[in-house]
Amino acid sequence: MALIVQKYGGSSVADAESIKRVAKRISEARKAGHDVVVVVSAMGDTTDELIDLARQITPIPPSREMDILLTAGERISMSLLAMAINNLGVKAKSFTGQQAGVITDAVHGKARIVDVVPGRIRETVDKGSVAIVAGFQGVTESTNDVTTLGRGGSDTTAVALAAGLGADVCEIYTDVDGIFTADPRIVSSARKIDRITYEEMLEMAASGAKILALRCVEYARRYDVPVHVRSSFSGVPGTLVTNASNVTTVPGVDAGTSEGEAVMEAPIISGVAHDRSEAKITVVGVPDVPGTAAHIFEVVAGAGANIDMIVQNISGASTGRTDISFTLPESDGPVATTALNAVREAIGFESIQLDDQIGKLSLVGAGMKSHPGVSAKLFGALRDAGINIEMITTSEIRISVVTREDSLDAAVRAVHTAFDLDTEAEAVVYGGTGR
Amino acid sequence: MALIVQKYGGSSVADAESIKRVAKRISEARKAGHDVVVVVSAMGDTTDELIDLARQITPIPPSREMDILLTAGERISMSLLAMAINNLGVKAKSFTGQQAGVITDAVHGKARIVDVVPGRIRETVDKGSVAIVAGFQGVTESTNDVTTLGRGGSDTTAVALAAGLGADVCEIYTDVDGIFTADPRIVSSARKIDRITYEEMLEMAASGAKILALRCVEYARRYDVPVHVRSSFSGVPGTLVTNASNVTTVPGVDAGTSEGEAVMEAPIISGVAHDRSEAKITVVGVPDVPGTAAHIFEVVAGAGANIDMIVQNISGASTGRTDISFTLPESDGPVATTALNAVREAIGFESIQLDDQIGKLSLVGAGMKSHPGVSAKLFGALRDAGINIEMITTSEIRISVVTREDSLDAAVRAVHTAFDLDTEAEAVVYGGTGR
Repeated sequence: MALIVQKYGGSSVADAESIKRVAKRISEARKAGHDVVVVVSAMGDTTDELIDLARQITPIPPSREMDILLTAGERISMSLLAMAINNLGVKAKSFTGQQAGVITDAVHGKARIVDVVPGRIRETVDKGSVAIVAGFQGVTESTNDVTTLGRGGSDTTAVALAAGLGADVCEIYTDVDGIFTADPRIVSSARKIDRITYEEMLEMAASGAKILALRCVEYARRYDVPVHVRSSFSGVPGTLVTNASNVTTVPGVDAGTSEGEAVMEAPIISGVAHDRSEAKITVVGVPDVPGTAAHIFEVVAGAGANIDMIVQNISGASTGRTDISFTLPESDGPVATTALNAVREAIGFESIQLDDQIGKLSLVGAGMKSHPGVSAKLFGALRDAGINIEMITTSEIRISVVTREDSLDAAVRAVHTAFDLDTEAEAVVYGGTGR
Repeated sequence: MALIVQKYGGSSVADAESIKRVAKRISEARKAGHDVVVVVSAMGDTTDELIDLARQITPIPPSREMDILLTAGERISMSLLAMAINNLGVKAKSFTGQQAGVITDAVHGKARIVDVVPGRIRETVDKGSVAIVAGFQGVTESTNDVTTLGRGGSDTTAVALAAGLGADVCEIYTDVDGIFTADPRIVSSARKIDRITYEEMLEMAASGAKILALRCVEYARRYDVPVHVRSSFSGVPGTLVTNASNVTTVPGVDAGTSEGEAVMEAPIISGVAHDRSEAKITVVGVPDVPGTAAHIFEVVAGAGANIDMIVQNISGASTGRTDISFTLPESDGPVATTALNAVREAIGFESIQLDDQIGKLSLVGAGMKSHPGVSAKLFGALRDAGINIEMITTSEIRISVVTREDSLDAAVRAVHTAFDLDTEAEAVVYGGTGR
C-alpha cells in the first residue's frame, strides 16, 4: 500500500472532539493498510494565546525564547492526537520537529528547512505505528536550538517530510474542499479545481490564494511531491497539485480527470486569485536619467520591503521627469516611504504617494502568453464591468491587474464569468484556517 | 562570587505579573555578581489543565505521550521567564531538560535521573547569562524520548543540577518562609527552623512534611548539596538543609546560628510532622508459625503497595494466633486487601480490616534514641491531651505514633508545646504549593 503524509491545521484540532474526529480519519487510513505520517499544527487559538502571554511580559521578546514558547503548542496537539489514535486501537507515537529530523537554519521565527533526516519516522511506520510530527518547528544542527518556520510552516513541514520519506502523496487537510477557481466567499459560483500544476499553484499562491503557502508549493515542486488539498470535514477528493507532464495517480484521487486529458488544448484557465494586502507607492517626478530606478529599488530593498509589481510611466519629453509606481505588502509601506524620503534630495524626485486602497486580481492558467486573446478578454470583461485598471503585469501563466480595492470583488466576479469558470454547484466554505 | 541554583514552583510563576516579580529577584542575584541557574515549574494550574485535556481524549493515555504533553507546561514558563529577565537588561536563555543534559531512565511519568551533563548550562553562565532550565523533565539517553520525573520532580532537577555544576547552594523558593517545627496551619505558634540536617529533613519529609520531596532531600544528601528553602515573597533567610558535621556557609544565610552551636547538646528536636495520607490494614487471626509474616508482606509488596509501619501483637498463648497491622498509602489500600484476600486460605488468617481514618504524628530530631526521656515526654503529652496511641515506631532520629485521624491536630499541638517548640512570632502561610 501507499505511504501517506497527512497535515491537519489548527482548526482541525481545535478541541478534544475535533482531535477525536481527526484521529478517526487517520486510523481509517492506517486500517486501510497505508503507512501514515501525520503533521499537526497547534490547537485552535493556542498560538495567539501564547503570543499574547509573551506580550504581557515584554514588548520585544527574544526570538529564540519566542520559538521555544510557540513550539509548546504543537507539543500539546501532537501528544493528544497520538493518545486519541491509540484509544482507537491503532498504535501511534508523537515526535517533535527535532525528533523527526527537521533540521533548519538558525533564523528564529522564520527558519528555513535545510535538511530532513526522518530515520525515527521511517522506523516508526515500518513497525506499523502512525507517526505524529509537530508542524511549524525544527532544530538547528549546530546548537540544537528549537526554531519555528513562520507562516505556512506546518504545510512546509508536511511536504518536506513527504519528500524525505518518498511518500506517495502529501495530503493537506483544511476547512474547504480544495482549491477553487476563485474565493467562494466572493464568487458563489466558484468551482473546485480537480488538478493544478505546481507552477499554476505557485502563481495562485503568490497572487493571494491563501489555501497553500507559497514556500510549501515551491518545496513540493522542487522535490516533485504530489500535494492533495482536501477537506477534513468531508470524504470527497480535493485538489491535486502535481507536475503537468505526469498524470500522477495518488491514493484517494481518480486517475485521468477531464483536466488531465485537456492539458493538450491550451489555454487552461486555473482560476482567479485576489489580494487586498498590498499597497502602491508612487515616486513622482523622478529625473529620467540612467541608474535612477536602480537607486530607488536598492533603497527600498535595503529597508527590507518586498516589491511585487513595478510600472514606469513614459517620460514626459518636455520635463525630463517620470513617475515610478510599485506595489508591496501594506505592512512594508511605512519603512519604504521613510527610507525613500531620506534620499529624496540625493535622487532628486519631487514627492512620494502611498496608496493602500488598491486590490490585485490575477488570472492564472497554462499557456496564457501564447494566447493573446486571453488578455483581450480579461480587459474587455473589466471594461464592461466599469472597472478601471491602474497597473498590469504578466508572466508565462499569469496576468495581474491592480484596481481600486472597492472594485475588487466585482472585478473577480466579472472575470470568473467571462472565462466560463462558473459552476452550478454551491461551494462550501467552513470558515477559519490553520497555520 | 557564588554559583547559585534557584528553583521556583508553579505558584511563583502563576501569571505574567508573578513571572516579572520572579525575574526581578533573579536579575538582582545576577547583578550582585552571582552566576545564576534557575529551575522552573509549569505556570500555576497548567499541568492540571493538560491532564484534564488528556482525560477528555482517553481514560488511559499512553505514558510516553502524557510526558510529551506535560512537558509543554515548563516550555511555556521557562521561555516567558527568560523573556522577562532579558527585559530587565540581564541576559537569559532557557533550556529544556534535554538541552540541560538531564538524562533519565525510561520510566515515563516517574523517571529517575541517571546522569546530569550540564555542558550547555555551564557554558551559558560562563558567558554571563542566566540559564533557565525546565524542571520536572529529562530525556532518555538511548531513545531521545522525553520523560517526566513525577512528584517533586522540579526540586530534584534543581538539586541534581546544583550537584552536577558544583553549585554553592540550591535555593528552593516556595510560598512559605521555610521549614517549620510543625505545619503552621495546625500549630499557629510553629517556629521556622534555621538549620536542619539532611537526615532530619529526610525524616520530616518521609513523615509527611510537604515542603521538600523525599527524593530531592535524598539526592542533596548523597551529593552534599546545601539546600536553602525560602520564600519567593520575602527576602528573609529560610531554612538551610545541610550536613550536620559541617557548619556550611552559603550565600544569603548567616554562618553560626544558635542551632549550629547547639549541635553539641543533644537531643535537638527539629519538629513535629504529620501525615493523613495513610491507612492501616490489620490481618486478624494469623497462625503464629515461622514464615507467615514474610508471606504476608511478599504478597503486599507483589501488589505494588509501599508499607510504612508494622506492628505484630503478642501471640495469644491459648489460640496460637496473632494479629499483624501495617500502614500504607491510602491509595494502595484496595490493591493490598484484594491481593491478601486472594491468599487467605493459603496463609490461613481469619479476616482483614482496612482503616483509613488514621493519622500519623512524627517527632524528628538528632540524638533522640540515646535520650529515653524523649519518648516518655511524647507519650505523656499525648496522654495528658487524652489521645490514644494505636501504633509506635522509632528510628535513630524519629518517633512516630498512629492516632485516630480526628485527634491528629490536637496531638500535633500538644507535642509541639511539650517540647518547647512554640514561638511568639506569628507564622506566615501564603497557601498553595508548586510541583
